[in-house]
Amino acid sequence: MPEKIIIDTDPGIDDAMAIFFAMASPELELLGLTTTFGNVSVDMATQNALRLVEMSGKDIPVARGASSPWVQALLDYPDFVHGADGFGNVNLPAPKGEAIDLSAAQFIVKTVLENPHDITLIAIGPLINLALALHIEPKIAQLVNKVVIMGGTILESGNVSPIAEANIFCDPHAADKVFSADWHVHMIGLDVTHKTLMMDALQERVRDNNPMCGQFLYNAGRFYADFYKAHRGAEGCYVHDASAIAYAIDPSLFTVLNGPVRVATEGVAKGQTILKRTNYKYRERHWDNITDSSVCMGVNAEGVLALYEKAMTA
Amino acid sequence: MPEKIIIDTDPGIDDAMAIFFAMASPELELLGLTTTFGNVSVDMATQNALRLVEMSGKDIPVARGASSPWVQALLDYPDFVHGADGFGNVNLPAPKGEAIDLSAAQFIVKTVLENPHDITLIAIGPLINLALALHIEPKIAQLVNKVVIMGGTILESGNVSPIAEANIFCDPHAADKVFSADWHVHMIGLDVTHKTLMMDALQERVRDNNPMCGQFLYNAGRFYADFYKAHRGAEGCYVHDASAIAYAIDPSLFTVLNGPVRVATEGVAKGQTILKRTNYKYRERHWDNITDSSVCMGVNAEGVLALYEKAMTA
Repeated sequence: MPEKIIIDTDPGIDDAMAIFFAMASPELELLGLTTTFGNVSVDMATQNALRLVEMSGKDIPVARGASSPWVQALLDYPDFVHGADGFGNVNLPAPKGEAIDLSAAQFIVKTVLENPHDITLIAIGPLINLALALHIEPKIAQLVNKVVIMGGTILESGNVSPIAEANIFCDPHAADKVFSADWHVHMIGLDVTHKTLMMDALQERVRDNNPMCGQFLYNAGRFYADFYKAHRGAEGCYVHDASAIAYAIDPSLFTVLNGPVRVATEGVAKGQTILKRTNYKYRERHWDNITDSSVCMGVNAEGVLALYEKAMTA
Repeated sequence: MPEKIIIDTDPGIDDAMAIFFAMASPELELLGLTTTFGNVSVDMATQNALRLVEMSGKDIPVARGASSPWVQALLDYPDFVHGADGFGNVNLPAPKGEAIDLSAAQFIVKTVLENPHDITLIAIGPLINLALALHIEPKIAQLVNKVVIMGGTILESGNVSPIAEANIFCDPHAADKVFSADWHVHMIGLDVTHKTLMMDALQERVRDNNPMCGQFLYNAGRFYADFYKAHRGAEGCYVHDASAIAYAIDPSLFTVLNGPVRVATEGVAKGQTILKRTNYKYRERHWDNITDSSVCMGVNAEGVLALYEKAMTA
C-alpha cells in the first residue's frame, strides 16, 4: 500500500521537482496539494500548483492556503532564486482548473480526520497552513501518520542568515507551533540538503527521458542553477524539497538526531531551528515537555539522487 | 616583554585557576583584576578577587565592577556549580584589602589610555564591564591590543540552553556590544573548552607542587569536579577560563574561524553567539559592517593542559 501524502508547497522550482518526484513514486499516493506563500505569493503558488497538476494529467485537488504569516509581516518573495513566476521566468500559460473550495488548512484537517493515522503531511514551504490546521483542529496531531518538513538547519550555515533557513524564516511563529505540537516532525534541513547537489547532467537525463515534465523542469531549472552557481559557488543545485520526498520514500537514506526543537522568532536569531542535542537539564526550559523531532543530519546523497532519477526517468 | 593584561572576572573556581595561571606565567603581566557578577554577586566576586591576590602575595589592584546586567534582570547565581561562596564552599576568611576607588570600567579605560596598544583585556565572566568601558570611552576600541573572551559557543551545545553559554547568557546585551565594537575579539567558547578536560590527577599534582595555591584550588575544585561528573557525565572538569589564559600565552594551541559575531538577546535563542561563517550575502544584514572576531573552534587540549601544569608547578 502506498503512503498517503499531502504536499504543502509554494512552487517554486524545487517544489515542482519534489511534486513530480512524489507523483512518479509508487511508494507514495498524493491526495492533494495545499499552497502557501513563500517562494511566491499564495495566489501564484496556487496557480503554479494547478499548472503542475494539469501537466501531470492527474486529478489531484489543489487547496489554496494562507496569504501571510502567523505574526510577522509578509516578506519579499525571492524572485532572484525562483524567478518572478516561481518557475525561472518560463512564464507558463494560465491554468484551466481552479482551487477547491476548502482552504489548505481545512483540506488538511478533513483529509486527516477521514484517514486516521494514514496521512503523511509533507511541508516544503513556510508552515502557516500546518499551524492553522493544528489551531482549528488540534486532534490532527494524534491522527496524522507523520509530518515531514523541508526547512531549518542545525549545524550547517543558514541561507537567509548565518543560522536561519528560508522556509522557517518566512514564518517562524508558525514553525514554532508546528515543531512544538504533539506530533512527530521529521526535519529535512540544510544539514542534509546542502550535502546533496544535483548536477546539470542529471537534469539533462530527466529532460531527455521524461516526456511529461522533463523539458519544463530543465528550462525552469536553468534560473535556479544559475543562482546557486553565481551566489553560492555551488556546482549544481542543492536538493531541498525533493530530499523531503526521498525521506518519505526511504528514510534509511538519512541519519537523524532525535530531540525537541524550538524556533527563534525574534532578534538576530530569527528563524533558527534549535535542537536540544543533549540530555542536560538546562536553566532554559523552553525545550522541556516538547515532543521529540527527528532531525536529519547525514544523508546518502548518491542514494537520494538515484531515487530521484529512477522515479523521474522510469 | 610580557604581555600586559587585565582580567575581568567573577571568581568562581575556574576563574581562580585562570588568575593563578596568569600570575604564574612569565609571558603575562597582570596589571589588575576587575570584577563582575556572574558565578556570584559582584560583591562576592570582589571579595574573592581580593582573597586570591592576598593568597598570591602580589600587589595587584582589584576594581569592583557593575552589579547587574545592561538591560535584562540579574539572574540567580549558579551555586550548584561554584558553591555559595564561589569557591566550592571552602569558606575562606574575609580579605584584609579593599577594592580601589575606580570602578572596573574606569580602571579599564584609564589603564588602556595610559598604555596605548599594549593592553590585552581577558574577560572570563559576563561582559558588562567591557561594555561600560566602551560606552564611557569609545576610543579604547582602537587603543587595546586585543580582547580575549571566555564565553559563547558556535557548534557545541550550550551549557545554560541548547545554544547558549553562561557568561554570554548572563548579559547578552553587553556581550552583543562587545562583539559588535570595532576591536578584535578572540572568543574562547565551549567549542574548545568542552574539548579540554582537566582530570583529578593533574589537580593533585598542582596541589602537591604549588605551595601558594595548590591546596586551595584542589579543595575548591572538588565541588566543581563533582558538578561535572554528576550533571554532565564528564570524567573531569571542563577547562573554561584557564583556556582563555592559555590562548593569551600561546594562540597556536588553537584553530580559529574568523568572522563577525552577533549575540541573540531575546527569545529561545537568548545568549547565543552567532558567527557568520560564509561569504554569502544574506537577506539578514545584522552581520554587515561588524568587525571580525577570531573564534576558537579547535584546540590542542594536551598542549593547554601541559602549559597550565608547567606554570602551576614551576
